[in-house]
Amino acid sequence: MDIIVQKYGGTSVADTACIQRVAQRIVRERQHGRAVVAVVSAQGHTTDQLLEKARELSPRPPQRELDMLLATGEQMSISLLAMAVDALGVPVISLTGAQGGIFTDEHHTKAKIKAIRTERIAQELQNGRVVIVAGFQGVSSGQDITTLGRGGSDTTAVALAASLGAKACEIYTDVEGVYTADPRLEPRARKLLEVGYGEMLEMASLGALVLQPRAVEVAAAYGVQIHVRSSFSDAAGTWVKEEAKMEKEILVTGVTADRNCAKIVMVDVPDDTSVLHQVFSRLAAVGVNVDMIVQTSKQQHTTDLTFTVTQEEVEQALDIIQGIPAAQDAAIVYDKEVAKVSIVGAGMMSNPGVAAAMFGCLNEAGIRVQLVSTSEIKVSCLIPRQRIQDAVQACHRQFQLEQLGTPQ
Amino acid sequence: MDIIVQKYGGTSVADTACIQRVAQRIVRERQHGRAVVAVVSAQGHTTDQLLEKARELSPRPPQRELDMLLATGEQMSISLLAMAVDALGVPVISLTGAQGGIFTDEHHTKAKIKAIRTERIAQELQNGRVVIVAGFQGVSSGQDITTLGRGGSDTTAVALAASLGAKACEIYTDVEGVYTADPRLEPRARKLLEVGYGEMLEMASLGALVLQPRAVEVAAAYGVQIHVRSSFSDAAGTWVKEEAKMEKEILVTGVTADRNCAKIVMVDVPDDTSVLHQVFSRLAAVGVNVDMIVQTSKQQHTTDLTFTVTQEEVEQALDIIQGIPAAQDAAIVYDKEVAKVSIVGAGMMSNPGVAAAMFGCLNEAGIRVQLVSTSEIKVSCLIPRQRIQDAVQACHRQFQLEQLGTPQ
Repeated sequence: MDIIVQKYGGTSVADTACIQRVAQRIVRERQHGRAVVAVVSAQGHTTDQLLEKARELSPRPPQRELDMLLATGEQMSISLLAMAVDALGVPVISLTGAQGGIFTDEHHTKAKIKAIRTERIAQELQNGRVVIVAGFQGVSSGQDITTLGRGGSDTTAVALAASLGAKACEIYTDVEGVYTADPRLEPRARKLLEVGYGEMLEMASLGALVLQPRAVEVAAAYGVQIHVRSSFSDAAGTWVKEEAKMEKEILVTGVTADRNCAKIVMVDVPDDTSVLHQVFSRLAAVGVNVDMIVQTSKQQHTTDLTFTVTQEEVEQALDIIQGIPAAQDAAIVYDKEVAKVSIVGAGMMSNPGVAAAMFGCLNEAGIRVQLVSTSEIKVSCLIPRQRIQDAVQACHRQFQLEQLGTPQ
Repeated sequence: MDIIVQKYGGTSVADTACIQRVAQRIVRERQHGRAVVAVVSAQGHTTDQLLEKARELSPRPPQRELDMLLATGEQMSISLLAMAVDALGVPVISLTGAQGGIFTDEHHTKAKIKAIRTERIAQELQNGRVVIVAGFQGVSSGQDITTLGRGGSDTTAVALAASLGAKACEIYTDVEGVYTADPRLEPRARKLLEVGYGEMLEMASLGALVLQPRAVEVAAAYGVQIHVRSSFSDAAGTWVKEEAKMEKEILVTGVTADRNCAKIVMVDVPDDTSVLHQVFSRLAAVGVNVDMIVQTSKQQHTTDLTFTVTQEEVEQALDIIQGIPAAQDAAIVYDKEVAKVSIVGAGMMSNPGVAAAMFGCLNEAGIRVQLVSTSEIKVSCLIPRQRIQDAVQACHRQFQLEQLGTPQ
């Protein structure tokens, strides 16, 4: 029997009616003769509400306890969904991350999956049950509950699909697939039929919230085919797989925008690689993710060091760098009113003019580019936050993305 | 270092301010040099809200999934309380039932504790941490989450106190102790300073919601001293222990009232012990708790069989007895508008006039007694629900309970 892994996000299980719709979809899949493993996120805004409760008690709650708290969100939705499937007369069982054999490291709130022991899930499937697994959570070797970080449910789903040898991993969300741009920012955005892993990885990392980058990495590593689609319709979504043949010749596949970034500048630090090392190794030690990094020599012996972190980690990052002796004399400034706009496309590797074309169209729109970073298949620009929509539309137009995929 | 186990009920952790107050109490206890294990219930009405969510999805959700759902309530409160204790600068860790080593049987929603493996708790205490354990929940040998039934947190606390060899088990609640009657029904009710296990067991079973009967049983079996007190004041509460010496001579210690009962009558069933056996063994098999049972022979070969169950189990009980072949011809009637009023006292064992005095005062108040059951230390009467307050006050007056204990 073919196994299919389905992942339902928070909006797909937001209330009783949503849960019943998801249950019907699961049952329909099973009637088509497939064994179904459903990975579920916490309902709607549950996670935010739980975080709010935590913040009322402590400005910096222990991360282990945060995980203990947040994990209840998924535990609620798996049990409720199991009840809904049961009410349709189909045998079903829900499993927490620990029960589902999702073993992680000890890095609370940002744990990584180390291994999946699928014995229990395989056994339950063999017993003819639909298996509903809590996304986003796992268990450490010390039996403590861990969470995988925001969007971790996608990673759970893809990792389970890989471990179980599933035919496909369907990611159900509140949009119909992966678009050339966020349709809220660019009304002419088009749904892509296929995206390669590499492109999807860049787009996911750059703010296309539809799929978590770590999930794409796992999918690429294990060759899991992902189908991103809407839980509110039966329309075909976007397939994420080895190579998007149809769009091979296309330079740019999509434009992404990421608001969750902030810029920190250390002005006049000693121009010494050991400072660089200290700053970023200390930030890494506490788990702060640094994104863009630029160092510009200004005058002899000193330099300006600029980098970006997520909005939530600004305070933590500032604390850390203020404690570095070598940076004692540096002025530290930060700016939360920035955003990152990126273009992504496997085709740009062999075409050096793409970055230039992007700068050109942003310049034409009067948008000041503060930082640039590039990879083989993307170009990212940090811009003032209030110009985000203008920037997305300028790039979308520049690279004629309205001619790709299918209309919304 | 002496270990003390404290149990905080749902009202004691209802909101942020309550949680902070509990955290302060825990920290104060620790500053007195004691190792603290706190057992916590779900916040306020969380359990009811979760049950409501379940009912929206299914009239009879699978009990395993109910447990999975309900267990999130305590998991939330333990993590929040741990954050509050941490915010006061005291090392702390929260543990789910499973992590705390609370092993139960597989009887979902009504599981019984089979064993407590205290290794992890002992280790954490040794590391100098306050340990916060989720009440009400455990884990089966198959790693499934179980719950102990309503009020199970008391049982968790007492069982932990026994396993850890704790000096005492403090049960914090929203009242100041055990009263001669529910103060909401009888304003002249008095707080008792001490109650014996046997009396407390009867009072708890009969509707004194302050302490769960199973918890009292465990306390009696292991000699755990329980201190029932308010989490909102520092007043001494009621000690529940081996023998309430101070009140040895007293016939009646308290009056209790229980609204959670319903009467079922099987009219004209065959007057045959095998019918009795069938009815009650089948009810037991599905876990329906039967309380009072009376059989009255009416005419030749048939009899009326009357018994009481909890309000929630009426439908289930009716389903079961309607399926019994020997009862096919019986008319089945039920009445949910009843209540049980009881008097409790270790002193009544040797005094046959107590029951008569109770019937007398109820009769004087014009209250019709529908069923009677007695044990060595209590007399219970089933009466019309709307007369509950009159009945409690009549008994309280009859046995001069306003002269016991201390005023409210």
